[in-house]
Amino acid sequence: MINSIKPEAPVADRVLYTYFRSSAAYRVRIALDLKRLDYRAVPVHLIRDGGQQHQPEYRAVNPFGLVPSYREDGRTIRQSLAIIEYLDECHPEPPLLPVTPFARAEVRQLALSIACEIHPLNNPRVMKYLERELHVDEATRLGWMRHWMKVGLQALEAMLAEMGSSGRFCHGDQPTLADCCLVPQLFNARRFEVDLSEFPRLLAIDAACNALLAFRNAHPSKQPDAAT
Amino acid sequence: MINSIKPEAPVADRVLYTYFRSSAAYRVRIALDLKRLDYRAVPVHLIRDGGQQHQPEYRAVNPFGLVPSYREDGRTIRQSLAIIEYLDECHPEPPLLPVTPFARAEVRQLALSIACEIHPLNNPRVMKYLERELHVDEATRLGWMRHWMKVGLQALEAMLAEMGSSGRFCHGDQPTLADCCLVPQLFNARRFEVDLSEFPRLLAIDAACNALLAFRNAHPSKQPDAAT
Repeated sequence: MINSIKPEAPVADRVLYTYFRSSAAYRVRIALDLKRLDYRAVPVHLIRDGGQQHQPEYRAVNPFGLVPSYREDGRTIRQSLAIIEYLDECHPEPPLLPVTPFARAEVRQLALSIACEIHPLNNPRVMKYLERELHVDEATRLGWMRHWMKVGLQALEAMLAEMGSSGRFCHGDQPTLADCCLVPQLFNARRFEVDLSEFPRLLAIDAACNALLAFRNAHPSKQPDAAT
Repeated sequence: MINSIKPEAPVADRVLYTYFRSSAAYRVRIALDLKRLDYRAVPVHLIRDGGQQHQPEYRAVNPFGLVPSYREDGRTIRQSLAIIEYLDECHPEPPLLPVTPFARAEVRQLALSIACEIHPLNNPRVMKYLERELHVDEATRLGWMRHWMKVGLQALEAMLAEMGSSGRFCHGDQPTLADCCLVPQLFNARRFEVDLSEFPRLLAIDAACNALLAFRNAHPSKQPDAAT
């Protein structure tokens, strides 16, 4: 009976609103690639046109005017960590979180340390406020940027040492949500010439990640909007 | 046979390093109380002694020098959202996240919007950097504080309207992780006299939360270190 033939599962219509240099979007690109999920990238240029993220069309997608946003089957999720947890729950293989609650908490605390304590302070909207509202000069703004990255990465290096659960990656020998956050943060640190020599653990994990195709595919330089 | 008698499950030794006014610690206190979990509060005074969070004893617990930290059976978890997800996985009732992946993502995006886009910019360590390193005067620092709260709460109010999944609480009619973050953020906004009149949805949810004993018990004014 023809009806008994199972139809092809419909390909979900996955859309990622992204900007090549956004480290939060970069996290989600890594997760999508690790899980081998196809998606359509919609670039939102954070500088051009006074910042396309401020246009009403994009504000309707993301009221914060931040990237990334993720749409699937017409529904939107904002916040990179919420998107990655969603992908992990819908597509469990390969897992981006370990199995036991404490191990999951270990991974989440690393990811959140980057997402809450380092990245928000270096966001373009914050740099713009420092420049335009507080009239902070460029060198001092760069000092601000480097300060928060440096103290954050120092704490992260110390936390990894204390935890004792890292392996080739932040947690054991498989990439997790924590690695999805670490690699973009280190990309950003290099971009602003933060001296990374005092972070041997972070650098070793970064190298292990970037040996994987999924991390390389997600790199800013590989994105369609990179040259624009 | 006496050995067949099941021993009482050992009471976990739960410790929360907290500061009464820390909105991140306040989030975890709400979650612990909603789940009716006993814990021992260890106050870390963020101002006294030049900030007890900077002392080597506490840095050993939390390399970022931030509260809260949570210890259970000799193991430490930092980052309020990682702690709450851990509590929710170990003690599923009452749940602080809904059941379906998309609904979970909706709750997490609200919680992360507060934890990543509002709170980190108003953290005491940031205010101190503005004062001591950038020599920003008090009125301008207050303007900074209010600016990030206001734009963040505006986006949150718009996001709730767009999502259409809020009820008495941020998501439906039971408190979730998102409410654990919203109530402390509004407490903080009131403390710095942010005009909240333009946020009717947030205020209605805040009132519904504060009608519950768990939220009231977790309030800064109810903490043992409140008067110190």
